[in-house]
Amino acid sequence: MKKFINGPENLEAEITRGMALAKPGLLRQLPGSNILVRQKLKKDKVSLVFGCGSGHEPAPGGYVGFGMLDAAVPGKIFSSPTPDMILKGIKEVQTEAGVLCIIVNYTGDVLNFRMAMEMAQMEGIAVESVIVADDVATQKNKSVGQRGLAGVLLVAKVAGAEAEMGTDLYGVKDVAQWAALGLRTVGVACRPCVIPSDGEPCFELGETEMEIGMGLHGEPGVMRCPMMNARDTARQMLDLILLDCNYENSEVVVLINGLGGTPIMELYVVNEFVHQYLAEQGIVVYDTMIGNFVTSMEMGGFSISLMRLDRHLKALYDAKAETPVIRR
Amino acid sequence: MKKFINGPENLEAEITRGMALAKPGLLRQLPGSNILVRQKLKKDKVSLVFGCGSGHEPAPGGYVGFGMLDAAVPGKIFSSPTPDMILKGIKEVQTEAGVLCIIVNYTGDVLNFRMAMEMAQMEGIAVESVIVADDVATQKNKSVGQRGLAGVLLVAKVAGAEAEMGTDLYGVKDVAQWAALGLRTVGVACRPCVIPSDGEPCFELGETEMEIGMGLHGEPGVMRCPMMNARDTARQMLDLILLDCNYENSEVVVLINGLGGTPIMELYVVNEFVHQYLAEQGIVVYDTMIGNFVTSMEMGGFSISLMRLDRHLKALYDAKAETPVIRR
Repeated sequence: MKKFINGPENLEAEITRGMALAKPGLLRQLPGSNILVRQKLKKDKVSLVFGCGSGHEPAPGGYVGFGMLDAAVPGKIFSSPTPDMILKGIKEVQTEAGVLCIIVNYTGDVLNFRMAMEMAQMEGIAVESVIVADDVATQKNKSVGQRGLAGVLLVAKVAGAEAEMGTDLYGVKDVAQWAALGLRTVGVACRPCVIPSDGEPCFELGETEMEIGMGLHGEPGVMRCPMMNARDTARQMLDLILLDCNYENSEVVVLINGLGGTPIMELYVVNEFVHQYLAEQGIVVYDTMIGNFVTSMEMGGFSISLMRLDRHLKALYDAKAETPVIRR
Repeated sequence: MKKFINGPENLEAEITRGMALAKPGLLRQLPGSNILVRQKLKKDKVSLVFGCGSGHEPAPGGYVGFGMLDAAVPGKIFSSPTPDMILKGIKEVQTEAGVLCIIVNYTGDVLNFRMAMEMAQMEGIAVESVIVADDVATQKNKSVGQRGLAGVLLVAKVAGAEAEMGTDLYGVKDVAQWAALGLRTVGVACRPCVIPSDGEPCFELGETEMEIGMGLHGEPGVMRCPMMNARDTARQMLDLILLDCNYENSEVVVLINGLGGTPIMELYVVNEFVHQYLAEQGIVVYDTMIGNFVTSMEMGGFSISLMRLDRHLKALYDAKAETPVIRR
């Protein structure tokens, strides 16, 4: 296992301290936890709390700061944060205006957040949630619903901007849900990541294979096939998205997210085709984000997200943000 | 070869178009070339031109925009841009105030930039250059001198901010040289990248080996050894830097740069130790940049750079920038 870590024992804590040390002006670590909290909390706005497993860096901590999250609660590698940690995050950033939890749609995340929210409510904290389920590759899986993927950061961006304007809890929740409604993501993977605790790859793929629709933790996708070129891969992915949601005559933001082991170069090559193909479908690209935003350690592959923007969402997307990763 | 590309033939052009399409408000592609030029060129300031091989994305194009580069001239994969392309870039962005070329210290880059600059001077363009040679792992190699590594983007940041203030050509050059004087970088690699044209890895390393001091194209380093943990690796790297340059009682910016195939998680783990170790040496960290800034496709590994900041460089480092990758 070729990883520049110091062993699996304290990995999550070391990541958190590394993030907090990098941007002390923006965020701080909550003592006795791996929770990252925004510096200069505002007492008169809705606070946003997001959590997910570790291993997806720079998520969740990279999005803490002005205009996005107030607290990021990471779990162990590829595990949901625990209810007590989520509760700790909620309590730390709670305000009179309330707390909105942003949850990615995995069974563990949903259960743990629900438990934490119930406990918070019992303590008199106004708390609401929005569930992000942007993965079109799991649309047929009725039992768990669609998974949450990288698109969650676009929801956090617009909801964070809305909260910064002083909108009330239900108003911020509405914006987050409206954004999530017009959000779709699909991923592709060609190389697994290695789980630090056991040194094993998180899935197996043949020497020349790739899998479209694979999840951030190696969950099964919808098509395992021989490696395709960038153009054909992106076309298959976009077709899955466009089958699920009609973006015709819409303006969208495109997010091309590397999973951690994919060269940035390839994301740009993919983007060239994405723009060409969307133009052919009459879809207008308002802005494009390219980089490693929500990763799976060194997994090879990427995801494509589209989020519909109306005039209000466009203003929120463009609004000032000051986080380690997103700045406007 | 598991790469999401469309073949090696038009790769550089596809990368360039992908970059231009992602941020049309910031940059545009110069027709008939892969040169990326800043939108809204300013006629009354020194222009900055930087070039390097393709394969290092988001460099060079990711740094074009307000407060940094005016033109980015990429070569073929891992090859210097040609003199005629560099000249084309210089001519496109030339102003009355002149042009400063930022050159990474490789034989081909230096030769080709010198040729282009001579041709530009013959056409009456005022052009100067600064050579960035931040790699301490080649300090003993007197024939070629130290190589240029990821630190070049910090030089571009401060020189770009100085140019934006309307400073004259020699003033901008002085700032760039002053910044480069206090800049040191060292890299480490544990996995090669694969060259798209022949599908071959750019170097070979044993199953459990890493190499400290390896260059961005797989050039030999100073120490090949069994994989070390993050802490020991970073300590070895920082010792090489601190042996070459005395940062005691200085304020520095730290740049921890992933080479493309290294999880962001590991960069944060490295950062935790870097901060601890620098504090022990009496070195004050002013800011930390962590991410994939100057890559080598999917190479595994990272580099650490330190750049000394005095009061003036600090202001320039903090100054407004609006490029695809760096925003302030």
